[in-house]
Amino acid sequence: MRLPRLLTPSTVVRAHCDLPCGVYDPAQALIEAQSVKAICDKYQANQDPEFRSRALIIKEQRAELVKHHLWVLWTDYFKAPHFEKYPELHALFNEATKLAGASGAKGSADPAVADQLLTKIDEISKIFWATKQN
Amino acid sequence: MRLPRLLTPSTVVRAHCDLPCGVYDPAQALIEAQSVKAICDKYQANQDPEFRSRALIIKEQRAELVKHHLWVLWTDYFKAPHFEKYPELHALFNEATKLAGASGAKGSADPAVADQLLTKIDEISKIFWATKQN
Amino acid sequence: MRLPRLLTPSTVVRAHCDLPCGVYDPAQALIEAQSVKAICDKYQANQDPEFRSRALIIKEQRAELVKHHLWVLWTDYFKAPHFEKYPELHALFNEATKLAGASGAKGSADPAVADQLLTKIDEISKIFWATKQN
Amino acid sequence: MRLPRLLTPSTVVRAHCDLPCGVYDPAQALIEAQSVKAICDKYQANQDPEFRSRALIIKEQRAELVKHHLWVLWTDYFKAPHFEKYPELHALFNEATKLAGASGAKGSADPAVADQLLTKIDEISKIFWATKQN
Amino acid sequence: MRLPRLLTPSTVVRAHCDLPCGVYDPAQALIEAQSVKAICDKYQANQDPEFRSRALIIKEQRAELVKHHLWVLWTDYFKAPHFEKYPELHALFNEATKLAGASGAKGSADPAVADQLLTKIDEISKIFWATKQN
Amino acid sequence: MRLPRLLTPSTVVRAHCDLPCGVYDPAQALIEAQSVKAICDKYQANQDPEFRSRALIIKEQRAELVKHHLWVLWTDYFKAPHFEKYPELHALFNEATKLAGASGAKGSADPAVADQLLTKIDEISKIFWATKQN
Repeated sequence: MRLPRLLTPSTVVRAHCDLPCGVYDPAQALIEAQSVKAICDKYQANQDPEFRSRALIIKEQRAELVKHHLWVLWTDYFKAPHFEKYPELHALFNEATKLAGASGAKGSADPAVADQLLTKIDEISKIFWATKQN
Repeated sequence: MRLPRLLTPSTVVRAHCDLPCGVYDPAQALIEAQSVKAICDKYQANQDPEFRSRALIIKEQRAELVKHHLWVLWTDYFKAPHFEKYPELHALFNEATKLAGASGAKGSADPAVADQLLTKIDEISKIFWATKQN
Repeated sequence: MRLPRLLTPSTVVRAHCDLPCGVYDPAQALIEAQSVKAICDKYQANQDPEFRSRALIIKEQRAELVKHHLWVLWTDYFKAPHFEKYPELHALFNEATKLAGASGAKGSADPAVADQLLTKIDEISKIFWATKQN
Repeated sequence: MRLPRLLTPSTVVRAHCDLPCGVYDPAQALIEAQSVKAICDKYQANQDPEFRSRALIIKEQRAELVKHHLWVLWTDYFKAPHFEKYPELHALFNEATKLAGASGAKGSADPAVADQLLTKIDEISKIFWATKQN
Repeated sequence: MRLPRLLTPSTVVRAHCDLPCGVYDPAQALIEAQSVKAICDKYQANQDPEFRSRALIIKEQRAELVKHHLWVLWTDYFKAPHFEKYPELHALFNEATKLAGASGAKGSADPAVADQLLTKIDEISKIFWATKQN
Repeated sequence: MRLPRLLTPSTVVRAHCDLPCGVYDPAQALIEAQSVKAICDKYQANQDPEFRSRALIIKEQRAELVKHHLWVLWTDYFKAPHFEKYPELHALFNEATKLAGASGAKGSADPAVADQLLTKIDEISKIFWATKQN
């Protein structure tokens, strides 16, 4: 699997620490979303019913982890000044977590849906890293 | 927290996919280990007993995640040819997971112990990325 | 423990079903937050160090469940038209989940902090039930 | 989904606190059982194999939560005097948790089985609230 | 740690299979309860506050696993004819799970409390193995 | 289900305690692997698609527990002198956990694969008990 080009530059692992266990990194959500995408690709390429059942079981778990890691960023990393500077942030996170849920990557095994999720996480990731440079 | 220099270059997020959900990345273990390190730093700097209890609770969880992510790499990513080429790999993973456990970062709140864990994960990480280039 | 008066009327359990497993109820977050409040009360009334350690362990778990149940409501129940009608909803959920986290009921054993969390959940609960009547 | 009439009156959320984290409420089991029921309804109405696999995955999780919440009530809330006054309580809980398991709502996607579970939880709920009024 | 004599004869691992995943063995609860006992012993022998906090964190988890494994036996393995033949079974399980909870091994670090739990599990274990021989 | 003869003699539950919560027993991995085997048998004997989906869901969970219990033994119980005396131990654990994963009992519902896993756990079990007698 080749990652869409836009995802690679911003995901170097860095650490941040302003609270108990204050290490945040969008890579956690991104890795799980890449897993979701890979599962969709393999699901479409394989008709075996046992394989497909397993793919859906695992995709459900990975997509739940995407939601969890995004929720943590939204609640624990981003603060009031960030939401003032980036007023679209709330909607971005709400849409991204919806894209990982029943109306997105949980409810669909279409790789294109997983790509939408990856793109949305990349938008969040860009804002995240921009806030680290101030 | 500044990361030790040696950790940064090899941890760009990439994806690998040769099995169902075949995305592996040492960054998952690394991020949790960075969290363990940050918790140790804050623990040493804070005498409040409530804060310290919380730090130990959270450190226990994060260190367990370090072990889990390393175990997954050892069992699911690395294959027989890797172990032939890198005969030290088994011991490296055994030592790294011990360093995340009772005799390491779970059993100690000393940041130096967490640093040993980070260094060991970096050794694994270098081998991991070397195997991706062949 | 007496519940603040304002919490009781809106929390009759009802069910909603417009998606796979589409049952939502703010009572799930509320019950866990009541537990957090009760733990804080007992923590303040008991000096035994074993009891206090256990209280902090359990409070951490319950507060995490509060966050989880609120995140589920925010992502899975509420839709675009709700956010248009109640533009304060995003901030309400962000503040409520922060109040359950490190800067709120996880980071403090003060019953007054738990009360702030209960009040915020009640605000969300009122909007939730208002959306059910249309 | 309309709830059976008999379920609604007894499920106002209240709190109880006689032990560390002593908040108990049958609503926790009830909400998960309502979810199981809703999943069965949707399963029967939808022939898509992906949807059906997801419904079974989620039903398994929700039914497990029903069992867990009921077990907690049986072990942690109810005391010896309750079991003396309501000698049928042990059997009620055993039957209810069986109805959430392999021989009940886990093993079947029939909404009628989920209804039996809801009815059994309602019997437990009535006894629970009766014990609160003494 | 030497196990009390009465525990050893009945705990040979055997398998039973009359339902999906129908393998039951009281050894699962017993091993976790032995862990709880060992933690209590070490807690009493060590005054280091970090060690003691960790002991309480881990004891809480192990005791929860004891409860879970016992609940599974009570709901999933034992059937109506067993409860007729052994009318004390319901109370035995209720007392055993209470002994693993707040009023028992969770709420106390006294090895004598853990011993009571081990004894109660042994009583259950004897009945379990008796039902296997018919 | 009859267990292969070779598995029974070495699995008497014993306890070991040289670290916080130092109770180890290969029976934990073995019981879950027996469950995986039983699920495979029932899967092959039943064509009902709902039953088969549930079997795959539960097999995935049980196989994950096999991996977890084996990883714990490998990291937490076995020490450097053990690995010197039994140089095949690393490979044994790596193969056993692979046999519980995607290339083994997770990826296949063939009872013969589950038997290979049981045999491998028995090899580990024999070494484990041999180390207890010194």
